[in-house]
Amino acid sequence: MNYAYSKNINHSFDNAESRVREALKKVGFGVLTEINMKDAFKEKLNLDYKDYKILGACNPTLAHKALDFENFIGVLMPCNVLIIDNKNGTAKVVFPDAKSLLKVTNNSDVFNLADEVDILLKKAFDAI
Amino acid sequence: MNYAYSKNINHSFDNAESRVREALKKVGFGVLTEINMKDAFKEKLNLDYKDYKILGACNPTLAHKALDFENFIGVLMPCNVLIIDNKNGTAKVVFPDAKSLLKVTNNSDVFNLADEVDILLKKAFDAI
Repeated sequence: MNYAYSKNINHSFDNAESRVREALKKVGFGVLTEINMKDAFKEKLNLDYKDYKILGACNPTLAHKALDFENFIGVLMPCNVLIIDNKNGTAKVVFPDAKSLLKVTNNSDVFNLADEVDILLKKAFDAI
Repeated sequence: MNYAYSKNINHSFDNAESRVREALKKVGFGVLTEINMKDAFKEKLNLDYKDYKILGACNPTLAHKALDFENFIGVLMPCNVLIIDNKNGTAKVVFPDAKSLLKVTNNSDVFNLADEVDILLKKAFDAI
């Protein structure tokens, strides 16, 4: 696993989400999108699934630079952070490794930006 | 550019979006998220930017299989389709190449699924 890193935290799914949002905000990332796969699978497939939320996080300044370097980079935006219910009162938080995910662009300007993104995301991850 | 493909279409930005949504729906992809970077940059940075929409498209059946194969695949979900205003009455539509983007998982089950995704997405792209 080289494109994401994770940890379990002793908080409920909902509390974990609040902590993730707060930590992201402190490093300048807003949450622009959210999907709970549990709801999507229930609605579309009538399947029961665990709480599994995908938060689309974005630092507007870095996103603007990225789009200057690579017009189609939106295909890989925003940065998805996951909160997964462990169903035992704890939750898993999963952060993306931007450098690995953006390697596919083959663009060194984007790689440098990805380093900046990863430093901020790691700081948020450590604070949770 | 190996992670996305695109074409210009002789439709306004708004019409292009409608066509993209319709084409995705016909191949079983719903749109779960949307971001217009124009609005995000105006709100957060007070910057003027072109209309640049990121639609997060998802085929629930394939997404469910993908999560079975790779629990953290949510980091790379949903599939982002872009609509970019060319500012001359035409718009660009950009589709992701799932196989390239998912290479980072190093998971052959995921690659096979990515092939299915790409066949459906290409069908939608061609129909626009």
